Amino acid sequence: MTYCVGVLIKEGLVMLADTRTNAGLDNVATFRKLQILEKPGERVIALATAGNLAITQSVMTLISEGFGPDDSGELQTLETVPSMFKAAQLVGNAIREVFKVDGVALGQSAGFDVQILVGGQVGDGRLRLFQVYSAGNFIEATTDTPYLQIGEHKYGKPILDRSVEHETNLDDALKLSLISMDSTMRSNLGVGMPIDLMVLRTNALDTELTYRIEVDEPYYNGLREQWSSALREAHLAIPRPPYLTKLS
Amino acid sequence: MTYCVGVLIKEGLVMLADTRTNAGLDNVATFRKLQILEKPGERVIALATAGNLAITQSVMTLISEGFGPDDSGELQTLETVPSMFKAAQLVGNAIREVFKVDGVALGQSAGFDVQILVGGQVGDGRLRLFQVYSAGNFIEATTDTPYLQIGEHKYGKPILDRSVEHETNLDDALKLSLISMDSTMRSNLGVGMPIDLMVLRTNALDTELTYRIEVDEPYYNGLREQWSSALREAHLAIPRPPYLTKLS
Repeated sequence: MTYCVGVLIKEGLVMLADTRTNAGLDNVATFRKLQILEKPGERVIALATAGNLAITQSVMTLISEGFGPDDSGELQTLETVPSMFKAAQLVGNAIREVFKVDGVALGQSAGFDVQILVGGQVGDGRLRLFQVYSAGNFIEATTDTPYLQIGEHKYGKPILDRSVEHETNLDDALKLSLISMDSTMRSNLGVGMPIDLMVLRTNALDTELTYRIEVDEPYYNGLREQWSSALREAHLAIPRPPYLTKLS
Repeated sequence: MTYCVGVLIKEGLVMLADTRTNAGLDNVATFRKLQILEKPGERVIALATAGNLAITQSVMTLISEGFGPDDSGELQTLETVPSMFKAAQLVGNAIREVFKVDGVALGQSAGFDVQILVGGQVGDGRLRLFQVYSAGNFIEATTDTPYLQIGEHKYGKPILDRSVEHETNLDDALKLSLISMDSTMRSNLGVGMPIDLMVLRTNALDTELTYRIEVDEPYYNGLREQWSSALREAHLAIPRPPYLTKLS
């Protein structure tokens, strides 16, 4: 299992991915799921992958080796795509290419399951965040819904639903993403440490932060504990239901 | 979609069910999913159902009309089963009976999907809570994991994971179940008001409470608002991540 989340706010973009993969519960491993292509001053494109590891690795290989050639006879890669929209298209096309090879066989067994978040900025284009589906099509985060999730998304969604807005501060967006990740990890053993994260400020064209949170990292541990005790206090502060009148 | 939760603690049993059913997003209706059989002083058995409505209604009809006859030639019903274990078996057998009739056709189209929570107490047996699966087999809540969920269970699981224990007070168990229901409703439109609930105290053999929370019920509305603002305050109280040093 996997959990990746991207939050696109006015100030910038936060992307987070766990690193646990498993083929069944008895075959667990650690793989990096957040990949960043960075040419400072020109482009930053980050990819977060979820789904069948064999598919995501094939797709990532296709993308990094280049893809095409296109109508003009040139090989398209993330290093050369002229916009974020084209980057999302490139990722979608790579998924379709892998589907041509493995799709039928996988459809008959494990299913062809892959989702990829594509976030970043190219040149003077906008900072954007896309979610590419198994079919190669994609959606984009907007000011109304400024976050996209892939993988095990349900446990970590309520906190994002309630708190992330377009105007949210970048530090808070990172903090809320970490709370979302923590909620997911507590409820699904298939999502695990360490956590890779990236923060990219709007129009910076240079990552503000690329970082791996390892087990026992003090800030993240503190966040987990504080969130737990805050939740306990929060429900204790709510009056008990008035329904059980016989009891009171 | 549906969300039902049962919490079995030392003091008693809480069961909650929403009432929304849908066949696609454009065909939404209200059906009671929590059914209670009560013979005060002798037995209380509550059933909460999730899954395909046609199946759950067939199963409930079979159960209420009686089932069998068993080896002794008698019709078994929830009114006569001698224990909660036998009640769970009866429900499982009813599911298998419906599967014989509809299973193959449904397996080829919508899938044979049904889960039922069976909670209560019969005579001097223990107060127990079971979850019966589509295959008719079942599991039981224990002191280690004192709650069981069916339907859309993920959004409402984190709060239960963190806060419900065997020693939790009965009012608090009801409050936590309502918070869990609220989290689910906020994230899945297929789960909706009103909410049916039942509270049964250990060894009471008489429901403490059977109640329907309608839209705009003051306590539940207050709980929703207080929980929302408590979550906001909780994350605001956590220090911002120290990672973005360039920003501070």
